[in-house]
Amino acid sequence: MKRKQQKLKIRAGFQGEFGAFSQQAAEKFLGEEVEAVPFPSFTGVFDGLGSAEIHFAVIPMENTLHGSVHENYDNLLRYGCRIHAETTIRINHNLMAAPGVTLRKVRRVFSHPVALNQCLDFFRAHPELEKAPYYDTAGSARMVMAELPPDGAAIASARAAEIYGARILKKSIEDDRQNYTRFFLLGSDRAKEHLPPVNPKDCVWKTSVVFSVPNTPGSLFRCMSAFALRDLSLTKVESRPLRGKPFDYLFYLDFLGRVGETATDNALRHLAELADMMKVLGSYPRGDI
Amino acid sequence: MKRKQQKLKIRAGFQGEFGAFSQQAAEKFLGEEVEAVPFPSFTGVFDGLGSAEIHFAVIPMENTLHGSVHENYDNLLRYGCRIHAETTIRINHNLMAAPGVTLRKVRRVFSHPVALNQCLDFFRAHPELEKAPYYDTAGSARMVMAELPPDGAAIASARAAEIYGARILKKSIEDDRQNYTRFFLLGSDRAKEHLPPVNPKDCVWKTSVVFSVPNTPGSLFRCMSAFALRDLSLTKVESRPLRGKPFDYLFYLDFLGRVGETATDNALRHLAELADMMKVLGSYPRGDI
Repeated sequence: MKRKQQKLKIRAGFQGEFGAFSQQAAEKFLGEEVEAVPFPSFTGVFDGLGSAEIHFAVIPMENTLHGSVHENYDNLLRYGCRIHAETTIRINHNLMAAPGVTLRKVRRVFSHPVALNQCLDFFRAHPELEKAPYYDTAGSARMVMAELPPDGAAIASARAAEIYGARILKKSIEDDRQNYTRFFLLGSDRAKEHLPPVNPKDCVWKTSVVFSVPNTPGSLFRCMSAFALRDLSLTKVESRPLRGKPFDYLFYLDFLGRVGETATDNALRHLAELADMMKVLGSYPRGDI
Repeated sequence: MKRKQQKLKIRAGFQGEFGAFSQQAAEKFLGEEVEAVPFPSFTGVFDGLGSAEIHFAVIPMENTLHGSVHENYDNLLRYGCRIHAETTIRINHNLMAAPGVTLRKVRRVFSHPVALNQCLDFFRAHPELEKAPYYDTAGSARMVMAELPPDGAAIASARAAEIYGARILKKSIEDDRQNYTRFFLLGSDRAKEHLPPVNPKDCVWKTSVVFSVPNTPGSLFRCMSAFALRDLSLTKVESRPLRGKPFDYLFYLDFLGRVGETATDNALRHLAELADMMKVLGSYPRGDI
């Protein structure tokens, strides 16, 4: 496909190193031509969005094994950016090493402790292998290719193997195949300009809101009536205690509907009446499941 | 206080190394005389409970920054054990080293990457320090005391410093003070015998349930009516998509009430009518917040 030379290069920030699952999500959202920009921390990515250093941020929000990333919900509220899209990435772990290093030669396996811990069956089957904690999954692939330890391997994504030129020795060594992470594509209100236009009628829409309710029995139930009375389906409900305000709760809620549609707009107006605080985080096409 | 020699030593399993926050939780639940038994993985702890190697398991269920630990909810369902108590531990990170190693001498700081990442402000203020990922927070304290690197320090709990004899160089270096983890004390139905008896009237009780609902608009709302109609206050609601069954959800719900009380028993019978699957995980005194 021929592209115009002057076409703007879209920059998307992510936390981690090249080859991270967040980079895969960025490419799934914006195509392989996206310029993925690594940041060491989540707040770094959000700051980058605030200073317009990047057009979009690609942020993990929840994982099937480890739950919602509350700190990123906090960042979403604090930085006040908009959700433009969602997607889900299957997290799978691959054993990889420099060309010439075979599985028989490997003694140390580098990766993030969370990844090492998700491959315990593999380590049980290979008691000769030592788990060597490393700062980052993709970073461990980069390291074994830079330092070429003759007995070292890494556990990282297939994309990391590709980027750093590592050879995959064993695919999908994770214990649990049901390991998925949901990512949001975040940006300013205006960032939408950089996305291909979507006809609202061509897809199912989701809307995400955050709200807090007074601590009285049935208060959440009343808030949810705003959706039930309009036959809007909820796809996520999560309460979170507000620290410093014991017994007060913050709720995350996703439902099928789009800001601009009558039922959604009415439900949100109704919710605003009932909640102490309410904020719409965005309406976006439902991603793959 | 004098204790009888023949008194049974209560054994509580936890994931991690001695000095882990889970061990602190075990001591908070069962007193300092508890025998805390470390296991390398969560499933190891649950297996230990199944084989009666330990009387109780002390398991982290949610963290204010990182959300619910879904894999432990899965373990709770799979292993069919009972919640006997809950507690909350403030996660704070301390810089520690072997006696004689002062902050000026330190160049490498060992800890679990999650802990290192929660102390970014400290590392920004000390650019001379290298973050050295290690397998476990408490394990990093053990390692600096065993190997005595002259330029090495660890980030771990104050309890880990005490256990391994490390000297704290700087207290509470975490960026966010609002970092708390909620733990459950789990055991068989009979494990209750080993706990001091509680008069139900002396405390506020919580009950935890898991249930799934058919995917129709308003189905969760109907389930919640079982509680709202009886003025029972919810303290946690969390939905979780069921992988392999897209659009079907598992819900975790905590409410103030106790199995054996009329309103609670009626609400649970009503919920069982409305839900596809429903399981009571336990009734237990509300812990500190």
